[in-house]
Amino acid sequence: MISPPDSSALCADIESALPRVHRYSSATPLLKLAWLDRLIDGEVFLKAECLQPTGSFKIRGALNAMTVLTEKDATDSVVAFSSGNHGIGVAYAARCLRKTATIVVPNDAPRVKIERIQQLGAEIIFYDRQREDREQIANTLLSNSLATLIKPYDDWHTIAGQGTCGVEIERQVAGKLDSAVVCAGGGGFAAGVGTYLRSCHPSLQVYTAEPEGWADHQQSFAAGERVALTETTATLCDALMSPEPGVLTFSINAQNATQGLSVSDQWVVTAIQLVWKHLGLRLEPSGAVGLACLMASPQQFQGQRVVVTLSGGNVDPPLFASLIDSARKSA
Amino acid sequence: MISPPDSSALCADIESALPRVHRYSSATPLLKLAWLDRLIDGEVFLKAECLQPTGSFKIRGALNAMTVLTEKDATDSVVAFSSGNHGIGVAYAARCLRKTATIVVPNDAPRVKIERIQQLGAEIIFYDRQREDREQIANTLLSNSLATLIKPYDDWHTIAGQGTCGVEIERQVAGKLDSAVVCAGGGGFAAGVGTYLRSCHPSLQVYTAEPEGWADHQQSFAAGERVALTETTATLCDALMSPEPGVLTFSINAQNATQGLSVSDQWVVTAIQLVWKHLGLRLEPSGAVGLACLMASPQQFQGQRVVVTLSGGNVDPPLFASLIDSARKSA
Repeated sequence: MISPPDSSALCADIESALPRVHRYSSATPLLKLAWLDRLIDGEVFLKAECLQPTGSFKIRGALNAMTVLTEKDATDSVVAFSSGNHGIGVAYAARCLRKTATIVVPNDAPRVKIERIQQLGAEIIFYDRQREDREQIANTLLSNSLATLIKPYDDWHTIAGQGTCGVEIERQVAGKLDSAVVCAGGGGFAAGVGTYLRSCHPSLQVYTAEPEGWADHQQSFAAGERVALTETTATLCDALMSPEPGVLTFSINAQNATQGLSVSDQWVVTAIQLVWKHLGLRLEPSGAVGLACLMASPQQFQGQRVVVTLSGGNVDPPLFASLIDSARKSA
Repeated sequence: MISPPDSSALCADIESALPRVHRYSSATPLLKLAWLDRLIDGEVFLKAECLQPTGSFKIRGALNAMTVLTEKDATDSVVAFSSGNHGIGVAYAARCLRKTATIVVPNDAPRVKIERIQQLGAEIIFYDRQREDREQIANTLLSNSLATLIKPYDDWHTIAGQGTCGVEIERQVAGKLDSAVVCAGGGGFAAGVGTYLRSCHPSLQVYTAEPEGWADHQQSFAAGERVALTETTATLCDALMSPEPGVLTFSINAQNATQGLSVSDQWVVTAIQLVWKHLGLRLEPSGAVGLACLMASPQQFQGQRVVVTLSGGNVDPPLFASLIDSARKSA
């Protein structure tokens, strides 16, 4: 484990990141749903990152990392590897900052994510998730060009960018917060948001939310060190199929005494249906994992004020239709 | 036509209404969609009233009117007649303010609207839209009780409440605004929002947006007096089937030099599909009429900064599925 990073330095960089992120996006709303307040006999605040122009929070890290890069040197092309949402974020930031972007994407990524990357004008290189290593492909690409790699999570500036979500939450929520539930693939969102919110509320408990079978953060926190999953199972949560926490993200999340939660796809579907029915918002499965964890274990949050990230909404229409259809039939 | 009301008095009452409304709800977000900016070579701001706890802007007028009522006297029961959304607003406000509410609703109202009213604990009285007069039913109810009628639009405090949406827009949008497109049933939303925004931007043009066949505002503005429709046609926009502008709302809207736009259901469906695809938000047909008007006549808004209200999202799931299904199939 690397030496724990300086939390106050990260908070300062998160605050510096906010104007960079808001130059090309706006604060997302913090929504309430009376049903959830009653469920935990407390208050649940839903941070609707699915309403970002890119449909997920990943726009934050991409905008911050690529703006810092632009300030430092004149590199005009970037490469990213991504299951989709980070790629959309980098493609969006590249368009804003007038760079060219190449995104390495698994060929089984949701079609809607691939389309959004293409519509933003980025080049896509597909790879086979089962047979090829995306980092190797990206590295080959990088060694043959002057492009810069924009890492999806294990990078200080990316983490600082994701942390801007925490600044918005702090400005929007009046009063104390007891817990934050943040979805985790590589752990960058939890690291940024968790660090910032704990600087405002020192006793706040941060939870990572993962799909069952991909609970590498939960296992790593329990073991006190990074655990790489050796066996994984199928999940609807395409954006969270990361087998091991990042090095930097884990050191930050561990320092924040973050705890891990995990949940079945069935709870994820229930959470999607709830948000759809009452708020009219489309969530992708990975974007509903935090809420699913809360709904599956309401007793853990009794009487608390909890913020939950609704981290993304990029889901293929036929899949979404099938997920809400069961709710419609049972209504 | 009654004598034109005092705009500055209305603006002052709109500002006083804001804390009453925000006591039980939050500011809704102002969203952007790059595709729309390109369409008019300007900037389009979408005010997402569909994200209100009641799924529409009607919560604003209900909360303001009923809070004022509570301050003035001790009446503890209210009656409202409504095609649905105003009824949900009154039921919500009644729960917040500990009153009992009776809502007179047409028996062909969307099921989801009826369910929301019931879930909020209000009593429902159904009537036949073709054969019965809802005002007469409400008046009979009122003469037999001590309840107070909460009018859906033609009331000063209701209009002031709806106007709080304009205060939020003004705080959220940086810089000048050229136009505001606001859906109109009875015209209260346009009267409140239009008056407030014109006090900040004197040359701003307010447009009412109506479904074709129910363009009583458009016809009334052209005639310079209230016109009652004698023939109407079927429309998807169940919340905007009002045959005549209100007396007070018309005098305010006319004073604001408001112009009328109207649009076919086909454009309404296209607007619903656009917002669904890019923002993942569910709009009801009536809530998409403003955007549909802009999309149908982009040349009218070239180079402008325009705010458009997405006024509601309460649509029955089977209808919504059928509306977006055509988009899915053509994708």
